[in-house]
This record gives sequence, C-alpha cells and structure tokens, in this order.
Amino acid sequence: MIRRLSVVGLGLLGGSVAKAARAASLAREIVGVGRSAASLEPALREGAVDHVTIDLAEGLKGADMVVLATPVTTLERQLPSVWRAADSQALLTDVGSTKASIVRAAEALGVSRPLDFVGSHPMAGSNLSGFKVARADLFNGATIILTPTDRTPTDAVKRVTEFWEALGGRVTSMDPATHDRAVAAISHLPHLVVDALVAAVGDMDPRFLDVAARGFKDTTRIAASDPVVWREIFQQNREALGEALAAFRRALGSLERLLESGDDAAIEAALERIRRTRAELG
Amino acid sequence: MIRRLSVVGLGLLGGSVAKAARAASLAREIVGVGRSAASLEPALREGAVDHVTIDLAEGLKGADMVVLATPVTTLERQLPSVWRAADSQALLTDVGSTKASIVRAAEALGVSRPLDFVGSHPMAGSNLSGFKVARADLFNGATIILTPTDRTPTDAVKRVTEFWEALGGRVTSMDPATHDRAVAAISHLPHLVVDALVAAVGDMDPRFLDVAARGFKDTTRIAASDPVVWREIFQQNREALGEALAAFRRALGSLERLLESGDDAAIEAALERIRRTRAELG
Repeated sequence: MIRRLSVVGLGLLGGSVAKAARAASLAREIVGVGRSAASLEPALREGAVDHVTIDLAEGLKGADMVVLATPVTTLERQLPSVWRAADSQALLTDVGSTKASIVRAAEALGVSRPLDFVGSHPMAGSNLSGFKVARADLFNGATIILTPTDRTPTDAVKRVTEFWEALGGRVTSMDPATHDRAVAAISHLPHLVVDALVAAVGDMDPRFLDVAARGFKDTTRIAASDPVVWREIFQQNREALGEALAAFRRALGSLERLLESGDDAAIEAALERIRRTRAELG
Repeated sequence: MIRRLSVVGLGLLGGSVAKAARAASLAREIVGVGRSAASLEPALREGAVDHVTIDLAEGLKGADMVVLATPVTTLERQLPSVWRAADSQALLTDVGSTKASIVRAAEALGVSRPLDFVGSHPMAGSNLSGFKVARADLFNGATIILTPTDRTPTDAVKRVTEFWEALGGRVTSMDPATHDRAVAAISHLPHLVVDALVAAVGDMDPRFLDVAARGFKDTTRIAASDPVVWREIFQQNREALGEALAAFRRALGSLERLLESGDDAAIEAALERIRRTRAELG
C-alpha cells in the first residue's frame, strides 16, 4: 500500500496512472502536480487525485511513490528539482517514451544523492492527449517496459514492477539503449513515415483524400498526434530514429527494385513474408 | 429490378456484391462464376447465389447485369471472353482497384462489339480476402468510384450508380487516370510504405516487435494482405505508384531535414499541419 502517490503531469498517461491507482485502491492519498490550477481542476473534481499543486517541491513532499509523467523534454528538465524535493525513501519512476537520456540524467543525479529510480515506458499512448482522455483501464493488458541498469537496486525494480502490475500492465525489461532502439523501430519510425505519407498525399489533388477509405485512416491515425510531444520525441531519440529510418529506406528500396524486376514469384514470396510477420502480431 | 445478376469471382468483393444484392432483393436470380466448384460451394449453400458455374460463357448467359470481381490481372485477361459471352443488352461493371488499363481494354473491345461497360472501384477492401469474409453490408457507406469516359453511355453510368446506391454505396466519379493516381496515393503507396516498414522492423532485434502496441498494429494492418492480389495491384498501377512514391520520398526527406534543423517552431508547425490534415479525415 502506497501512503502518498505523487503524479507529476496529469495528461493521458499521468491522469490514467492516478485514475487506475484510485480504482485499484493502491494509494491512501494521491497528489497531482501540474503547470496550472486550471489544468489540474478536472482531476480534483473527478476525485482522481486528493490534492493538487503547481509547486513541484510541495507536490513531492512526503510521497513514498512518485510517477513523473510530463513530456520527455520537460521531464528531463525537472529531474534536478525532483531530486532535491523527493523524500529519501521515495520510489521514483516515469512514463517517458525515450529512456537513455532520462536514465543517464537520473543516474548522474544519483551520484550525489542516491534515490530509487527505475525508468518506465507504458506502451499505452494514443494520438489523443490530455486528462480528458485519461482512463482507469489504460494500462490493462498494456506492455510496460522497465529500463533498469546495473546500478538500479533490484528491490526498486521489483516494487515498480508490482506497481504497474497492480494497474493491469504486463511488465518487461530492456536496457535503456535497447529500449530506445525498439521504440524508434515500432513507434517513432512509423510515426515519421506516416507523417510523411500524410504530408505527401495532403499536397496532392484534394479529391484523393476525399476517397480515402478505412485502410488509409487506420494506417495514418497516429499522424493526428500532438505536435509538441512528437517534436520532442523525434529530437530526444534522434540517433536511434536515424538508424531505423535508414533500415526503412533500404527495405523500401529493395521492395521497389523487386517490383521492377517483374519476378512474380520473388515478389509474392517477399509480400508473403511481410504478411506473415504482420499477421503474427495479431 | 435485375432479372439475372452474374458475379464473376466470389471473393470478399464479389461475394459481398452477391450477398448485398440478395439482402436488398435487387435481382430475381444471382449466378456465381468461379474457378472451382469447391470454391463456389459456400456461396451456394448460404443462398448468396442461386446457381454456380466454372464456365464463364454459361455464367454470363442471359444476365442483364454483370459484375466482374476477379483480381485485376485475371479480370483483364477475362475481358475478351466476357465480351464474347455477354448478352448485347447486359450492363457490365467491375470492382478492380486499378482502372485505366481495364477501361482501355474494355473500350478497345467495344469498338467491334459495343457493350455497356462502366468501371467501378468500391473502396471497401480489407486485408482479409475470400468469400468467408464477404458481408451483405460491406458497401454500406463505402465510397464507390465510377470511372466513365466520354465514350461511356450516360444511361449506363446512371444505372451502375443506382446499382451501387442500392447496395448502400456512396458513388463518385473520376476519369480512369485520375482514379489510378488517387488510389496510388491513398491505397497503393500506403501499402508499399507499410510493407517496407514491416520488412525493416521484422529484420531487427525480435524483441522490438514483441513490445509493439496498438499504434504499430493499426498502422501496419494493411501489410497482412494477400500477396498475389497486391503483387498484381502494384504492377498494374506501377506508373502512378512510382509518382506517389517519389512524392512520399520528397516529403520524408523534407521532414528529416526539418528535424535536423532544430527549428522547434517550424517542426511543430509542420507536424500541426499534418495533424490537421489527418484529423479532418475523421
């Protein structure tokens, strides 16, 4: 049982952490920390949190569990303040979608003041954002990637695992660099590619988009995402994204050459391999 | 009221035409034409068609309405036989996802034997295929693109429009070349790009796909499509697809350079433009 859970940033993910923790009676008290009283008000009114504050130090005071849920760049900027304000017994985690940089910053701060910090990334994002779309069941069945390093206390990993499992998540682990390459491949690259797809088609004859059907809509849904959040993600994970993008360009070039070859059997074999890879994901 | 409707090819689209026509009591009699008795049997057993045959000439005999619903390459190969076998009063249409080549072939055949043919493309495909996924409501609310030319009789366009509207479709028109450029942009290009995405990620560390979430699955669903159908589509629409692919590569290159520029405001403005374009599609 958590005595006081502090959630910093009550958007889709932070708001859902508060709602899910409340629904599971996981914490005696939940504190929401945000940028403005107005933005925090809905969470308070709905009873997802017990107290709200725009003062980070005040919000972290006495918390035995802290979830950092601001956008990645903000989160990294807040870390020194978090380190100053958090209780020495507090268990800290975050929900940032890139991890190497955040974990590195946290470990640098940990040299002078060791705190229990475990990086987390719940794979439960959406193109929608804000507390208005937060849901108590958001993490139900969702994959949660923890990114401990050899400097992360085993007990802290265990407790953060239990936390996410109590919210319905399925926890897995990767080192921060592998995590960043994984999400570059399965999240950031698809985003960038689909953004380019929408940009390209959007610049063509307007009648083209008029006849777009479900396939196009499903494929491009992630292009309707928050521009600030994604600008930050693309920048934070630039290196891994660059590698994934190079692999994508090679694959696209190979497919194009294969189509030009006119080798029907080879084309069908390649498309069948792709079909099977995708079909296995369910 | 159609006296005899012949549907050539009882896959997802042809099967759905038969089921929808039956459900709407649009034809007194429905004949299914296919490659093998075994493949036609389910449609007969379910009552979607009244008769089945693997003989094209027999299947078209006495039909006042004919829907050609075989894969695009097969369809084009069948056209001369269709032209020989069809009644002189028959109204013909198809469901092929590329149109310039088919319409050109039909008009060439029409020189020696004028028949009422109007190219159709119901935007109601799926990554799934076969009669087993055919549905009476597949065309309900779906966009149907007709591709008449200045040689297509106005009355034939009117009757094919009424046919699709009776099945629940929303009919719009484009000339065949514009149609092919439109579907290259909103269907074939996304397919190819997503195929490359799956191929690239599939060749990486297998743990990456293990953590893929809903965003990746939605984005890549169309990659789990029939390899033969899509090999044919890519080849049939090669030219328009090549143009769309070039536009996509330019858009991707622009986005990449913009991200490298570090101009936060310009990046967010570009992503916001993309977000809005996609959001307008609903």
